[in-house]
Amino acid sequence: MRILVLGGDGFCGWPTSLHLSASDHEVTIVDNFSRRRIDDELGASSLTPIESLAGRVAAWHEVTGRTIDTIELDVAQDYDGLLAVLERVQPDAIVHFAEQRAAPYSMKTSATKRYTVDNNVNATHNLLAAIVESGLDPHVVHLGTMGVYGYGTAGVRIPEGYLTVGMHGADGEVIETEILYPANPGSVYHMTKTLDQLMFAYYVKNDRLRVTDLHQGIVWGTQTSETELDPRLINRFDYDGDYGTVLNRFLMEAAVGHPLTVHGTGGQKRAFIHIQNTVQCIRLAIENPPATDAGRVRIFNQMTETHRVRDLAEMVARMTGATISYVDNPRNEAPENELLVANDGLIELGLFPLTLEDNLMDEVLDVARAYVERADLDRIPSVSQWVRPRRVPAAN
Amino acid sequence: MRILVLGGDGFCGWPTSLHLSASDHEVTIVDNFSRRRIDDELGASSLTPIESLAGRVAAWHEVTGRTIDTIELDVAQDYDGLLAVLERVQPDAIVHFAEQRAAPYSMKTSATKRYTVDNNVNATHNLLAAIVESGLDPHVVHLGTMGVYGYGTAGVRIPEGYLTVGMHGADGEVIETEILYPANPGSVYHMTKTLDQLMFAYYVKNDRLRVTDLHQGIVWGTQTSETELDPRLINRFDYDGDYGTVLNRFLMEAAVGHPLTVHGTGGQKRAFIHIQNTVQCIRLAIENPPATDAGRVRIFNQMTETHRVRDLAEMVARMTGATISYVDNPRNEAPENELLVANDGLIELGLFPLTLEDNLMDEVLDVARAYVERADLDRIPSVSQWVRPRRVPAAN
Repeated sequence: MRILVLGGDGFCGWPTSLHLSASDHEVTIVDNFSRRRIDDELGASSLTPIESLAGRVAAWHEVTGRTIDTIELDVAQDYDGLLAVLERVQPDAIVHFAEQRAAPYSMKTSATKRYTVDNNVNATHNLLAAIVESGLDPHVVHLGTMGVYGYGTAGVRIPEGYLTVGMHGADGEVIETEILYPANPGSVYHMTKTLDQLMFAYYVKNDRLRVTDLHQGIVWGTQTSETELDPRLINRFDYDGDYGTVLNRFLMEAAVGHPLTVHGTGGQKRAFIHIQNTVQCIRLAIENPPATDAGRVRIFNQMTETHRVRDLAEMVARMTGATISYVDNPRNEAPENELLVANDGLIELGLFPLTLEDNLMDEVLDVARAYVERADLDRIPSVSQWVRPRRVPAAN
Repeated sequence: MRILVLGGDGFCGWPTSLHLSASDHEVTIVDNFSRRRIDDELGASSLTPIESLAGRVAAWHEVTGRTIDTIELDVAQDYDGLLAVLERVQPDAIVHFAEQRAAPYSMKTSATKRYTVDNNVNATHNLLAAIVESGLDPHVVHLGTMGVYGYGTAGVRIPEGYLTVGMHGADGEVIETEILYPANPGSVYHMTKTLDQLMFAYYVKNDRLRVTDLHQGIVWGTQTSETELDPRLINRFDYDGDYGTVLNRFLMEAAVGHPLTVHGTGGQKRAFIHIQNTVQCIRLAIENPPATDAGRVRIFNQMTETHRVRDLAEMVARMTGATISYVDNPRNEAPENELLVANDGLIELGLFPLTLEDNLMDEVLDVARAYVERADLDRIPSVSQWVRPRRVPAAN
């Protein structure tokens, strides 16, 4: 298939592009390099040294003989450019990663909140409007987040996007209705993915677009079968307080001899997925598209296991001898939560889950140790605060 | 109270600003004149001749001795300007009308879809982010729409924003939970108000802002007790296919001897409110703010009655002798729907509903007749189409 990967230079986008190319698809990456720009803004950088996108695709061609096209374009800002790309490439599928994806970054300042909302909403809406204007019928595969559901729905297994509820009718009778699972996001970033959901639902209903929304857990791991073929193909590895995801951060902390920083009690239960499974899930969604004119967004939960953050920390501590440091939780959330998640959809399409039991943590530790001299320990703490002090209300 | 009215030059904003000023509040209007600019873009104009905003507030001062401040500012584009206004005015309440509000305009072209989403989302989010950054605690009163609920929930009385549903727990037990009423918008414009809802919910939860969301029905009528004090205070009257709301459009069509244009069967049941009640509702919401730190958006349905479109057409035809012309429905919607709506909240705060029984239709007819020579009949048809033909799906 012809596949556009919007945001194909990022942490999930790059290995996805390689995996799709390796699977005989014709891949075109569209990226505005915002993730590299934010590194500069934060004075942070990937623990692993990453090539320029031009260098990456040249190395991929050299190693495999396969070609990946690249286009520098800001999907949120350059609508006409996006429309021209659609009309030229005529994609069968479009993977949409073109969003700011870090919750702590989205809570940092007014400017980062506003950038996250403006960029993510306009990227998604420009894509939908351009597809309608083009008259094409590509299958959109979007990276959502488990965070659209919110946490703390104790005792309820989170379904794949939809929930059947009973509503009381005019005469007191119960009417069973299927609704989108009620949104309860935990950050401005997560909120943008709940806005995306409503935009997808509308365009699928009104314009009969085909959309799969993949509500992903926290990704861990660095390398995939494709990125490890050559050092120039290596994936980025974020460990800073904004972009570093929790398990990778613990493994990197262990590698550099830093205490594992657990926020609050570490009682937050989260969903996880290995990056190798991420790229497989996206391929499975693309190769098994929903029916034309389904009239309903297809939603899968893209995760393979759930763990409490403190249990992960203890596991890494046992593996490595690292100590654990409990620090204040910058997030505004319940200290402890349950989390039960359905993930049947992708399993039925053929996903074989990789889990923490599969000894893949060693790979991450090895990568972290290999680049330990590049680490800047000052970047580890999360300095974003979810809530700032308010002034006394103005007198009425 | 000190009150900012964002979008205070528009059809609802202007009479609201006057009503609040007449009620002894200190009003500052913020507007970017986008509604006047869109008139130019569409080659349409208000049936009533409206003064410049400077002329309007000068006339208000001359007639009543009261002062309304005005600031030209684009809330969606000029965040720093908005923050400076908040810090200078220190408002007790902010009425947020600063959104593109016509469904047909929002469906016209890719450009108008994109403008509607970009403007409405960023206006709302800039306001929320600026309030948090300012540290102030103003009460935000937002104009939502009945259209967030969607139509066609046959037999269910639409509650005021929230719905208690039964969800099945892990052991099959039913867990009763209050959720935001599931969104089912009927246009890109209505969709933006469902996005607003989620942004309000998040900021109220995380930052403890105080927000009232008023889900308004279709407004009819032109004049209020304040706008009729002087011809220079007259409210705008839209009759074009994009901005003209259905009952005002019928009354204007009757006044100029044009057939009443009913879309489809006219079986759509809609909620209505007179402009005089609109301004009272907003005042009631402001003068009865929710508790500080309520942690939940207060939602009221701002409507007083429901009618089928064809029944309205028949009523106007009987009143005036006009004929009815059934034309294709440009909207993508069910031809017939039921609509039962709760509106207890504003009634409890003291709203006295004006209805079609109150002979206010004569006022609208009189206004339309008075300015009949300004009418451009070519502007009456709605030319926006909800759905455009799609190409055949690309072969996989």
